[in-house]
Amino acid sequence: MAGISPAWVCAIAALLVGQVVSYIDNSTGQVIVPGASSYNGLNLVPQMGWDNWNAFQCNVNESLLLNTAQAMVDYGLRDLGYQYIVLDDCWSIGRNSSGYLVENPEKFPHGMKYIADKLHGMGMKFGMYSSAGIFTCGRFPGSLGYEQKDADLWASWDVDYLKYDNCFNQGQSGTPQLSFNRYNAMSQALNKTGRSILYSLCNWGDDNPFDWAYTISNSGRMSGDVYDSFNRPDSRCPCTESIGCAWPGFHCSIMNILNKMAAIQSRTMSGYFNDMDMLEVGNGGQTDSEYVVHFSMWAMNASPLLIGTNVLTLSPANLAIYSNPAVIALNQDPSASAAVRKWQYFVNPDETGQGEIALWTRSLDNGDQVIALLNAGNTSMTMNATLNDIFLDPRTAGAYQAPPQLSEMWDVYDLWANRMSDNEAASIINGTSMNLTSNSNSTVTRYNATATSYAEGLKNNDMALFGAKVGSIPPMGTWSAMIERHSVGLYRLRQQPSGLRKRDEL
Amino acid sequence: MAGISPAWVCAIAALLVGQVVSYIDNSTGQVIVPGASSYNGLNLVPQMGWDNWNAFQCNVNESLLLNTAQAMVDYGLRDLGYQYIVLDDCWSIGRNSSGYLVENPEKFPHGMKYIADKLHGMGMKFGMYSSAGIFTCGRFPGSLGYEQKDADLWASWDVDYLKYDNCFNQGQSGTPQLSFNRYNAMSQALNKTGRSILYSLCNWGDDNPFDWAYTISNSGRMSGDVYDSFNRPDSRCPCTESIGCAWPGFHCSIMNILNKMAAIQSRTMSGYFNDMDMLEVGNGGQTDSEYVVHFSMWAMNASPLLIGTNVLTLSPANLAIYSNPAVIALNQDPSASAAVRKWQYFVNPDETGQGEIALWTRSLDNGDQVIALLNAGNTSMTMNATLNDIFLDPRTAGAYQAPPQLSEMWDVYDLWANRMSDNEAASIINGTSMNLTSNSNSTVTRYNATATSYAEGLKNNDMALFGAKVGSIPPMGTWSAMIERHSVGLYRLRQQPSGLRKRDEL
Amino acid sequence: MAGISPAWVCAIAALLVGQVVSYIDNSTGQVIVPGASSYNGLNLVPQMGWDNWNAFQCNVNESLLLNTAQAMVDYGLRDLGYQYIVLDDCWSIGRNSSGYLVENPEKFPHGMKYIADKLHGMGMKFGMYSSAGIFTCGRFPGSLGYEQKDADLWASWDVDYLKYDNCFNQGQSGTPQLSFNRYNAMSQALNKTGRSILYSLCNWGDDNPFDWAYTISNSGRMSGDVYDSFNRPDSRCPCTESIGCAWPGFHCSIMNILNKMAAIQSRTMSGYFNDMDMLEVGNGGQTDSEYVVHFSMWAMNASPLLIGTNVLTLSPANLAIYSNPAVIALNQDPSASAAVRKWQYFVNPDETGQGEIALWTRSLDNGDQVIALLNAGNTSMTMNATLNDIFLDPRTAGAYQAPPQLSEMWDVYDLWANRMSDNEAASIINGTSMNLTSNSNSTVTRYNATATSYAEGLKNNDMALFGAKVGSIPPMGTWSAMIERHSVGLYRLRQQPSGLRKRDEL
Amino acid sequence: MAGISPAWVCAIAALLVGQVVSYIDNSTGQVIVPGASSYNGLNLVPQMGWDNWNAFQCNVNESLLLNTAQAMVDYGLRDLGYQYIVLDDCWSIGRNSSGYLVENPEKFPHGMKYIADKLHGMGMKFGMYSSAGIFTCGRFPGSLGYEQKDADLWASWDVDYLKYDNCFNQGQSGTPQLSFNRYNAMSQALNKTGRSILYSLCNWGDDNPFDWAYTISNSGRMSGDVYDSFNRPDSRCPCTESIGCAWPGFHCSIMNILNKMAAIQSRTMSGYFNDMDMLEVGNGGQTDSEYVVHFSMWAMNASPLLIGTNVLTLSPANLAIYSNPAVIALNQDPSASAAVRKWQYFVNPDETGQGEIALWTRSLDNGDQVIALLNAGNTSMTMNATLNDIFLDPRTAGAYQAPPQLSEMWDVYDLWANRMSDNEAASIINGTSMNLTSNSNSTVTRYNATATSYAEGLKNNDMALFGAKVGSIPPMGTWSAMIERHSVGLYRLRQQPSGLRKRDEL
Repeated sequence: MAGISPAWVCAIAALLVGQVVSYIDNSTGQVIVPGASSYNGLNLVPQMGWDNWNAFQCNVNESLLLNTAQAMVDYGLRDLGYQYIVLDDCWSIGRNSSGYLVENPEKFPHGMKYIADKLHGMGMKFGMYSSAGIFTCGRFPGSLGYEQKDADLWASWDVDYLKYDNCFNQGQSGTPQLSFNRYNAMSQALNKTGRSILYSLCNWGDDNPFDWAYTISNSGRMSGDVYDSFNRPDSRCPCTESIGCAWPGFHCSIMNILNKMAAIQSRTMSGYFNDMDMLEVGNGGQTDSEYVVHFSMWAMNASPLLIGTNVLTLSPANLAIYSNPAVIALNQDPSASAAVRKWQYFVNPDETGQGEIALWTRSLDNGDQVIALLNAGNTSMTMNATLNDIFLDPRTAGAYQAPPQLSEMWDVYDLWANRMSDNEAASIINGTSMNLTSNSNSTVTRYNATATSYAEGLKNNDMALFGAKVGSIPPMGTWSAMIERHSVGLYRLRQQPSGLRKRDEL
Repeated sequence: MAGISPAWVCAIAALLVGQVVSYIDNSTGQVIVPGASSYNGLNLVPQMGWDNWNAFQCNVNESLLLNTAQAMVDYGLRDLGYQYIVLDDCWSIGRNSSGYLVENPEKFPHGMKYIADKLHGMGMKFGMYSSAGIFTCGRFPGSLGYEQKDADLWASWDVDYLKYDNCFNQGQSGTPQLSFNRYNAMSQALNKTGRSILYSLCNWGDDNPFDWAYTISNSGRMSGDVYDSFNRPDSRCPCTESIGCAWPGFHCSIMNILNKMAAIQSRTMSGYFNDMDMLEVGNGGQTDSEYVVHFSMWAMNASPLLIGTNVLTLSPANLAIYSNPAVIALNQDPSASAAVRKWQYFVNPDETGQGEIALWTRSLDNGDQVIALLNAGNTSMTMNATLNDIFLDPRTAGAYQAPPQLSEMWDVYDLWANRMSDNEAASIINGTSMNLTSNSNSTVTRYNATATSYAEGLKNNDMALFGAKVGSIPPMGTWSAMIERHSVGLYRLRQQPSGLRKRDEL
Repeated sequence: MAGISPAWVCAIAALLVGQVVSYIDNSTGQVIVPGASSYNGLNLVPQMGWDNWNAFQCNVNESLLLNTAQAMVDYGLRDLGYQYIVLDDCWSIGRNSSGYLVENPEKFPHGMKYIADKLHGMGMKFGMYSSAGIFTCGRFPGSLGYEQKDADLWASWDVDYLKYDNCFNQGQSGTPQLSFNRYNAMSQALNKTGRSILYSLCNWGDDNPFDWAYTISNSGRMSGDVYDSFNRPDSRCPCTESIGCAWPGFHCSIMNILNKMAAIQSRTMSGYFNDMDMLEVGNGGQTDSEYVVHFSMWAMNASPLLIGTNVLTLSPANLAIYSNPAVIALNQDPSASAAVRKWQYFVNPDETGQGEIALWTRSLDNGDQVIALLNAGNTSMTMNATLNDIFLDPRTAGAYQAPPQLSEMWDVYDLWANRMSDNEAASIINGTSMNLTSNSNSTVTRYNATATSYAEGLKNNDMALFGAKVGSIPPMGTWSAMIERHSVGLYRLRQQPSGLRKRDEL
Repeated sequence: MAGISPAWVCAIAALLVGQVVSYIDNSTGQVIVPGASSYNGLNLVPQMGWDNWNAFQCNVNESLLLNTAQAMVDYGLRDLGYQYIVLDDCWSIGRNSSGYLVENPEKFPHGMKYIADKLHGMGMKFGMYSSAGIFTCGRFPGSLGYEQKDADLWASWDVDYLKYDNCFNQGQSGTPQLSFNRYNAMSQALNKTGRSILYSLCNWGDDNPFDWAYTISNSGRMSGDVYDSFNRPDSRCPCTESIGCAWPGFHCSIMNILNKMAAIQSRTMSGYFNDMDMLEVGNGGQTDSEYVVHFSMWAMNASPLLIGTNVLTLSPANLAIYSNPAVIALNQDPSASAAVRKWQYFVNPDETGQGEIALWTRSLDNGDQVIALLNAGNTSMTMNATLNDIFLDPRTAGAYQAPPQLSEMWDVYDLWANRMSDNEAASIINGTSMNLTSNSNSTVTRYNATATSYAEGLKNNDMALFGAKVGSIPPMGTWSAMIERHSVGLYRLRQQPSGLRKRDEL
């Protein structure tokens, strides 16, 4: 079997760990915990946070990080789950005579430990950046050959996260083995520090990390860098859907990256997520409905959600997108799985020469289904999702009879129905709206995951996590919706309790 | 020469082994037996049996295995050749402090040796599963780095078969050398146990196992995982006919896998078979005629035949497909060769966007020919097979004259003509039909390969192995047949004895 | 991040080098200078010079080199920046008994040190050639396994430059690692000589040097060899735009090589340039306007500019192309960046079956923009460049608001407007025109970079570097121009000072 | 430079070897002779001979070899240059207890040395076969790990030639380095025997041998195995023109293999030839004109010419094809170069779905040109070759002026004009025609290369090597000819002496 079906998850619950010990893997020296769902116990659902690169590149400094963190607390983003503040490239000025990295003292006058302390004090976590090469992409010193020294330094600063890039890698690539060995060196070094540090690979899909990175990291980029365009092809991102393309490039559009996910859906799992790159919402290159597609599809595919814009200048509309708890709940669903592109049709191209419609679906931990009717074509369309398509996988996985889901009644919840109004978002930005300190009096637009985890909230049927009911699908039926150009209909399907009960009584 | 023609087979028969000794290969330490037709003496024809994955995934336990085995005995499947009961992933809970794997005691309360003994007592054989990685695909402990310990344990349990997967392989892939070394480690370990264990690679065609696996294993998967669909493309199976595609994926349809075989036909040989993955017949995702195509083409291509459905709930129609001795006899033919796709034309696509017709042929050990007129198009068609196409290979293999087969008369036997009726199959399932304990009073629908091997039965011209005569092809002639949408005409061509004699007399 | 945006350049200026030491890289033994913009301090802008191969192949000797150098001095080419005289293959006759290479005494009767001295006396520099194989491409001894001996010899001859080829490399390729190690061996050997030697890789793009060569060399070929054809496809150059094509070949046309640059634009940087191969201008295979395209696009993409024709027989028109300071200034711009192909449309093909139009743009160090409206179609066309297209990158790089450039007024300078007349060029060739010994009385057609660097001249707004103003683009506007078949409109856009000031005052 | 132009050949002639010594290559231990045109001094022009595989596969024995050799002497084939009798697979029965290979005593009752002696007595040479794997393709013992033992044995038998296959290579492939190392092991072993043994790689183009095999071998297969079809695509030969295709396959048609040569033309050189596989002429799968195409294009591309049919049953027409000295002279031309496909157009397909016309040209050592107007389309066509196309390479190789050849007058010789009549061929087969023992009274149809080498004969303007004059091409002119379906017009162009003299006098 190459694909990993949800079915085995149940089996792991049955582990009798009393009888079995963890052990050292002979070939790598790694400690193996049988049945563990994350190599280091971290990131059972995708990481969320902010990274400065997309909006600020090398213009980084202490106040940018701390001010952004404060705004994220104030805007409720921290409590929606965006916890990591990731400082990207250009923070160092080199190594000292002992070989340790030195931070730029002009940008970071109080040092890095100070920032970590401040962030921790705000309930945030601190991420750093380096490259598995002799330079970072910005040509500052990289960590290749210095893995342990650098990991030790970060641990001494109480760093919680490492984004590890691929530039200037001295040609140590070209087979999965070469890339694995290079990235494993840092994985082992991080393990040896004794500190829990989320390890995020940024090797652009080179050498197929989705095939080997789970046992040494918590997430891995599966494409060249995103740019703030919905679907414009760019010659610098030459790879499209083909897996194993030799040149991941950058300037990859939202649709380009999304469609690359279609082949590797099975390689998302608890503890390791395929990273579709940072979120461009707010950077101005797309329309509101395109940003909604971007955010929805990243969430559905369990990509890490790292805000990639200037939080301090966030517009109400963009805050509303980032703050939709019903969509974030998909991302943070305990199923830790990616979506399946059930079908894709090419339609009349738009001005970029692109045009497609597609149905993406995903099965959630509690049996709910998500469907995304994605219209990346040039005109509005009525789109359809049949239960037959939605339940293709149980239909073709040794079912030997029609899966019961086909004959059930499904209620349909529009996950964007309760999108926060611009007025409400503006009041949050203006500080005229209170933060939500618990979910005891929660609304349909806001949620506090610090107080109650999404998993808990889903169990409690918290209204904020389910959008609004907009209809239902009868047994063997179809969901139809008019979807505007460059937008998505994002629905959660829930089994209708009464209908179920009735059939059970028969 | 890259292709291996049947012609050399005769030469091996002439080996004067008295003069020659077996020897140790310098580069690998393997014992080489000159001219041997299997590296370990096993699997001169493709393995047959049952594997739980497709229908049960991780829901495995002792009673499932034993009950299934009993049903296979009762339904005559064992005596048709389906001997191996393969327990797939999720049977272990980890390693003990000595590093040995521990079976799940809830699922297997009497241990594995108990199961092996029971199966052997029924005349069945026992297969286990592991992965050439640090985890299995279901994230239970894998065997990478533990090859000898695990092989020793399986041998101590009297295991007869190992399915060896490719998940979590720590990046040890990307060139044939890397994959060979990893899979060879287990091959050597199995050899060292001293027990005969059929070794079945499951590396999804990665790094082209058909090019290197013969000397270390008995079969090797050549594609991503099958799913129960006749021809629906799925984004998770991105590779089509191209060899060397970097991402085998899974959810590969019957037609997808079949067409991948077309390029590697010459890499099937006695002792090593290209594994097209488990049989989906009975799982409900295809029509009866599509399942007939599936079973026919797997048989023709000498794929291992592993039933992949719930035997305990098998329908009469599906039992009839699995039980056609005339088709199984193709699979078990001593020629140990795969079929050739002589031509393929794309025709009007069906609702999945696919449509093709093709002629596949195969030359059997006794000189008979098989032809499959495969209609994977959207409508019924009259299809033609000319002797010129059927005998393309002798015509182009240094013949320097037209091959004699072109001027012979060929009788045509439809191999599905004597398909067991649903009534007969139902009586077998109901236990109201007697088992066949020998072939002395055999019928056209049933065969006992335990009593008489297929090779023997073919020599004896056992009626059950030849279907029914439906016509003949004159010298230089053509066979025409109306083939329904998504079905196959499967024919065995036999040289007409009288005609031959006449020409000999001239 | 995979792409390196210009933004980080500023950060490097802030390096407080007093606090940080250079250090030895553990994995390679290289000395790493933090933030350095060239691994050996050389080639911060692309090298310029002459190489004999395209016009003379193996017909090399002392007088060819010295006479050519003298002509380059006389024609003002040296002072335009063409400094390196590169002796290509076929200069050696083998190794002596100590293993040192021996020059051909008939071709080079005074030895190589003599040539270096003469060239240095003329203000020129001396380049040599070898191959990272056991033979050069012409089957003279190569340097594989002799790296230090050969580097020492060249250093003893006062050589300034090494072109290092890829022939007969004993199969040491196929992954970036294999190629990196082979080319790094010579890089380390050159470093050890203590002499500054520009190191120019010629491995035809094999194993993607743009991904690994920056840390060990100053330029790297990114394609198979150029030939003197504008756009004729040749079966010997099978790779087109696809990156990672296994067979770079040779006989690659100007348009073939240009389009291969589109994907790897981000891999050009100060100290390392993607080498598009030598200039064919003057070799007779293209029209004047095609040569203008060739020279313009090489310059825009920061390719090394190596004259590849017989300078001694240069026509006035071709001298005029090589001598356009406004175009060379693009090439030598301190931004050290390549151009971006913003769009490409296929149009009616010409007799070679090719036809396209494209917009290429590049952002310069002083904020100016260059646009190339390239018509490689079969007929003249009116072509358009919008500010939206020109400023795509700032629009999509985390801008979160429209970049200010869109609302500015841009003056448009045609960089070929002041192309030297044939009469003027003829007078230079005839020796009836004085050389420019300084830029104090410079003209619009001529420039002396020996006296004043291009960087300096750009700051000074030297008229020779800016062509002639031909119009302007209003805010949010478009530049339109009629472009002839197989030619280019090459424009430098400068922010209109008055307009700017006005807006600032508002 | 990636391509090697003929220009450098002259330079090598100037080598002053008195001053230079041969030396040991540090990286491989090979002895390097500077400027040598063959790594072992053999095969300066392509090998010619006979190999049993295509017609006999494993049906080999002593009398087949000796009878074939005698026929080749009798039919004049030896004296046309066909010297090597190559015994292919299936000659061994294993290894003895000392690890040496043992020949099959039934097939070779007098042993191998006996055959070598007999062949040498006839003026022929003896070739053997093995595989760089643990088995041969026919699963007899291979030489991997036994290189020196096997080379020593063959040398002790006075073997002159080794064909070295690629089957069962234990996964030692996937990068050029892996394949190089494996094939180099045998190369070194052969060198150590001290006997001159022509070394012919048969690795099907895997890992691009044309890039690395010159320094260790004399020829290398560049495609999967040929089969006796002009242009029928076969699924078992999936690779078409793309270089680096992962699965060379077999059953490759004449046109398939020919077009694969187009990209690698520059990788043919004195001492190393790209092997297009054995000749199928005589095997019955193609028409007479198709066989003429096959033979012509193999000859033009300097492929080894190994007769692959049953010589004992050769028809007069097929003998006439194999015996055309004017075509063989192309193959044996001292230029040791391959042809260039100047253009290719797809035309109406035939019943196999294929259709193309193409112009191939080649420049010969004496300045003559060959042009092949190849019609692989479905109908007759008038085809044109312009001097502009013929002399593309000098036009685009730094010419800086139109090459003189364009303004010359060229006489056109049809190289098939003097094809031996079937009557004459029949008389040779019947033994009623005398052999040619010298060329003193040579005819236009026959030639004795044993008496006078082709190089010598070309210098002497021997009539048999030039076909018949059929016209001429004026300066800047075009050659037009009506070419039948599936045939070729093969012409040698010679500079018209009178015309030349006249222009010289001006």
